[in-house]
Amino acid sequence: MAADPRFFPQAGPQRLETILATLGEPCDVTVAALDLVLTGVAPLAEAERGQLSYCDGARNLAALRRTAAGAVLVQEAQRGAVPEGCLALVVRHPALAFSRAAALFHPPPRPPAGIHPTAVIGAGAEIGAGTHVGPYAVIGEGARIGPACVIGPHAVVGEGVVLGEGCRLHAHSSISHAICGRGVVLHPGARVGQEGFGFVPTPEGRFVTMPQLGLVRLEDGVEIGANACVDRGSHADTVLGAGTRLDNLVQVGHNVRMGPGCVLVSQSGVSGSTTLGRYVTLAGQAGLTGHLTIGDGARIGAQAGVMRDVPAGADMLGSPAMPAKEAMRAMTMMRRLAAQNRAAAKDGEKE
Amino acid sequence: MAADPRFFPQAGPQRLETILATLGEPCDVTVAALDLVLTGVAPLAEAERGQLSYCDGARNLAALRRTAAGAVLVQEAQRGAVPEGCLALVVRHPALAFSRAAALFHPPPRPPAGIHPTAVIGAGAEIGAGTHVGPYAVIGEGARIGPACVIGPHAVVGEGVVLGEGCRLHAHSSISHAICGRGVVLHPGARVGQEGFGFVPTPEGRFVTMPQLGLVRLEDGVEIGANACVDRGSHADTVLGAGTRLDNLVQVGHNVRMGPGCVLVSQSGVSGSTTLGRYVTLAGQAGLTGHLTIGDGARIGAQAGVMRDVPAGADMLGSPAMPAKEAMRAMTMMRRLAAQNRAAAKDGEKE
Amino acid sequence: MAADPRFFPQAGPQRLETILATLGEPCDVTVAALDLVLTGVAPLAEAERGQLSYCDGARNLAALRRTAAGAVLVQEAQRGAVPEGCLALVVRHPALAFSRAAALFHPPPRPPAGIHPTAVIGAGAEIGAGTHVGPYAVIGEGARIGPACVIGPHAVVGEGVVLGEGCRLHAHSSISHAICGRGVVLHPGARVGQEGFGFVPTPEGRFVTMPQLGLVRLEDGVEIGANACVDRGSHADTVLGAGTRLDNLVQVGHNVRMGPGCVLVSQSGVSGSTTLGRYVTLAGQAGLTGHLTIGDGARIGAQAGVMRDVPAGADMLGSPAMPAKEAMRAMTMMRRLAAQNRAAAKDGEKE
Repeated sequence: MAADPRFFPQAGPQRLETILATLGEPCDVTVAALDLVLTGVAPLAEAERGQLSYCDGARNLAALRRTAAGAVLVQEAQRGAVPEGCLALVVRHPALAFSRAAALFHPPPRPPAGIHPTAVIGAGAEIGAGTHVGPYAVIGEGARIGPACVIGPHAVVGEGVVLGEGCRLHAHSSISHAICGRGVVLHPGARVGQEGFGFVPTPEGRFVTMPQLGLVRLEDGVEIGANACVDRGSHADTVLGAGTRLDNLVQVGHNVRMGPGCVLVSQSGVSGSTTLGRYVTLAGQAGLTGHLTIGDGARIGAQAGVMRDVPAGADMLGSPAMPAKEAMRAMTMMRRLAAQNRAAAKDGEKE
Repeated sequence: MAADPRFFPQAGPQRLETILATLGEPCDVTVAALDLVLTGVAPLAEAERGQLSYCDGARNLAALRRTAAGAVLVQEAQRGAVPEGCLALVVRHPALAFSRAAALFHPPPRPPAGIHPTAVIGAGAEIGAGTHVGPYAVIGEGARIGPACVIGPHAVVGEGVVLGEGCRLHAHSSISHAICGRGVVLHPGARVGQEGFGFVPTPEGRFVTMPQLGLVRLEDGVEIGANACVDRGSHADTVLGAGTRLDNLVQVGHNVRMGPGCVLVSQSGVSGSTTLGRYVTLAGQAGLTGHLTIGDGARIGAQAGVMRDVPAGADMLGSPAMPAKEAMRAMTMMRRLAAQNRAAAKDGEKE
Repeated sequence: MAADPRFFPQAGPQRLETILATLGEPCDVTVAALDLVLTGVAPLAEAERGQLSYCDGARNLAALRRTAAGAVLVQEAQRGAVPEGCLALVVRHPALAFSRAAALFHPPPRPPAGIHPTAVIGAGAEIGAGTHVGPYAVIGEGARIGPACVIGPHAVVGEGVVLGEGCRLHAHSSISHAICGRGVVLHPGARVGQEGFGFVPTPEGRFVTMPQLGLVRLEDGVEIGANACVDRGSHADTVLGAGTRLDNLVQVGHNVRMGPGCVLVSQSGVSGSTTLGRYVTLAGQAGLTGHLTIGDGARIGAQAGVMRDVPAGADMLGSPAMPAKEAMRAMTMMRRLAAQNRAAAKDGEKE
C-alpha cells in the first residue's frame, strides 16, 4: 500500500544512494545497489515490490520473512530473515532510519510564504521570512513570529507571544502569554497560555480569581497534541523542556516544570506546581497530583494516580500508584483471594 | 414543559395520524383518535395536557401513572398504567418511536443552502447541491463536500477531504486526511485526521516524527463528540464503522479500527492499533492500551483499564480490567478484609 | 520576580493606602506606613524589595522568614515570623487579600468597546454598551449580549443565546442553546450547549438521535475551563450554580444540575442527569456515573469513580468509590497482603 497521493505529496521514486544519505547513520551496500530505485515506503506486511520497509528489532520477524518489499532496513541480527529478492539495508536504528526515509518520500507539506489577506495582524507584530499565515489567523499586537513558521487557519496568537524559527500552529490552536523556541508544534485545537485554575474563596463562599501572572515557556521542538491544554504559571512560569511531546487531550496545570524529552500520552494530566525531571513518561490517562517531584526517567503506567514524589527511574502503577512490582503483587493477591472466596463473595454481592 | 421556542423551531401542533406515520412501526388506534391534535413532546413528569410522552419499559411506571400527557407511547405490558384521559399508544419500541415523533415537532434546524461570503473555498473544491457553508469556514483545495451538508461557522476542512451527503460539521470542528460517508457529524471542536502520536528517539535522545501516512475513514452515520480527537493512521487507516458514536473528549489513536455501532462514552480512550469489533461499548473514562483486539459486543466499564485482548460479549471492569464478576468478587473481598482488620489497618495508616 | 510587562499591564507603583482599600477587610497599620509605596506583587521566595507578598497560614513559614518582600500579608499567628525590614500587614484572609491586591497592580486587560469589522452579527442580535466583539467572532440571530462583555477572537455565540453583564468568551469558545448570568467566563475552546449524547437503537442496530430539547443555564460567575464541555439538556436544562468553576477538559453531560460553588478539577466528568449539591468538589480525573445525587459539600478524590449516591459532606476515594477511610484501610490491607505473600505472588506473576 502506498500513501494516498491525494493527501500526501510524493517525492519519488528515489535512488537508493539518495535514500542512504538521509538515514542519519552509515549503511553499507554494494556500489551496484546504489542505483536501485525505490518508489515509496510501507510497513512489512503491506509493502509492494519496489517499496522500502523496516523491521524494528526482533518484533515482526514473521512479517519480515514474508515481506514483498524491495528493500528493508534491519539490524544485523535480523539480516538472515530478509527474504530473497529483497535488499537488506543493515543499520543500527531501523525505525529511526525509516522515519527519515519516509520523510524523504513524503516531505511535510509547506504552504507558501505569505500572509493570507483575511489574517488579522496586530500593530507591531513581526512575521519572519518565509512564514505562512493562513486564512483567518489572528496575530496579537507585538507578537514576534520567527522565520519559516506555519500559522494554520484560525490559529490565534496572543499579544507579545514569541515563536522561534520553524514553529507550526495547526488549525484552531491558540497560544497566549508564551515564549517558544524553535520547531514548536501545536496540533489542532491545542490551548497554550490560558489562565490557570487558581482562586481563593471569600468568607461568603464566592471564589476570587488569583491573578495568574506567569508565562508558558516551550523549549525547542516541544509538541502539544490536539485539544491538549497547558496553563500559564500563576507567578513563576510553566516550562516544558526541549523535545517534550504531549499527546491529544493532555492537561498541564500552572507552574508545572518538566525536563527535556518527557512524553505524556493521551488524556494524562499533571496538576499544578508539579516538577518532572528529564525523560519522564506518563502513559494514557495517568494523573499526577500537585506539588510533586518526579525523578528523571520515571515511567508512570496507564491510569496510574501518583500522590507522592517518585524517585528517578521508578516504574509506577495503580491508583494510588505504587512501584510496579508491588502493584502487580497486590493485584495477584487480590485475584487469588477472590478466587478462593467465591462463596463468601457471593454473600457480599447481595448487599 | 415545552421546548424553548427561542432555541428550538416548532412544527406543530400535529394530528395524531401524522405522528403515527413517523413512528417507524404500526400503532393501532381508533379512527376517531386519528384526529387528536398534540402540541408537543415532553417527559412523563413534565408533560402537560395535549403533549406526547413515552414510557420506556417498566422504568418510570410511577411517573406514567401520574402523567398529565395527552398521549403516551407505551409497550403492551404498561398499557394498564396509563392514566384516564391519556391516550395509550401501544408500540414495541416507545423510546425509538418517541425520538421520531420529537423530531417531527422539532425538526433539526437546516441553515439555507449557499456559501457565506466570508467562507474561503480552495481551488478545485466541490460543494454539493443544497449544502450550507457558514461564516469563516475554510475548505481546502480539492475537497469534495457532498449535497445537503452543513459546514458550521469556523469549521476547517483540509485539502482533499471527502464528505458524503448530509454531513454536519459544527462550529470550530476540523477534519483533514479523511474520507467520510453519508450523515457523518462532527460536534463543536472535534478533531479528525491530525497527525498521530508516533516518533522514534535518536541515540542522543531527540524524537523524530514518524511520518503519519494513513487516513481516517468515517463510515455512514459516524458521530464525533465535542472536542473529541481521532488521529489518522500511521500507514494503514484509522477506521470507524457505520453508526459508531463518540461522546465528548474521547481519544482514538492512529490505526485504530472499530466495527459498526460502537459507543465510546465521554473521556474514554483507545490507544494506537487496537481493533474493536461490532457494537463494542466503552463507558466513561475507560481506556484501552494499544495493539489489542476487543471482540464483538464487549462492554468495558467506567474507568476500566484494558491491557489484554477481550473476547466477544465479555463484560470487563477494573484497572487493570478483569471479567466483571471476578472484579466484583475481588472488590467485595477487599472491603471485607478492610472491615475485619481495622486495628491492623490503623497501624498501616501511621506509616 | 515581577510579572512580565510584555504580557501583563502594570498599574503601579501603588501607595499602601490604596492597596489597603482593595483588600476587602480592615488592616491596621501606622499612619506613617500609609505612604509606603509598593512596586508589585510576588510569592515570598521571589519577592524583591518594594514588592508585596503573602503567607497563607502556617504553610511557607520558612519562606516567610527569609522573604525580601517590602510588605507581607499574614495572619496574626504568623506576625512574629515576618523578617525585619518587611512590613507585616495582618489580615484574616491573606491569600484572598493578596489576590485583590494583585489585581490592583495587574488589572485584567480590557479590550476597547466596539465590534471588530470582521465580526459577523446575526439579524436582531443585541450587543450591550461597552462590550468588545473581537475579530472573526460570530454572533447568531437574536442573541443578547450584555454590557461590558468581551467576546474573544473566533468565539461563536449561537442563535438566541443570552449573556449577562461582564461575561468573557475567550478565543475559539462556542456556546449555543444557553442562558447565562453575569460574569460568566468561557476559557479558550470551551464548548457549551451542544447536543448531548442521547440516542436509541433501532431493532436493526442503527442509532437514532433523541432530540435534545433542553438548554444550558450558567448562573452568575460560572467559569468553564479550556476545551471543557457542557452539553445542553435532553428535556430539562443542564444547570451550573453560581460561581461554579470547571477546570480544563472537564465533561458535564446533559441534564446535570449542580449547586453553587462546585469545583470540578481537570479531566473530571459528570454523566447525564446526575445532581450535585452546593460546594461539591471533584478532584482531577474523577468520574460520576449518571442519575446520581451527590450531597452538599461532598469531596470526590482524584480518579475516584462514583457509582452510587453520596451523602452530604462525605469524602470519597477509589474506583469504585468508597468512603475515604474505608478506601485507605482497604489499600493498606492490600499492600500488607502483597508484602506478606511475595512467594505466593511470584507464582501468580508467572501465569
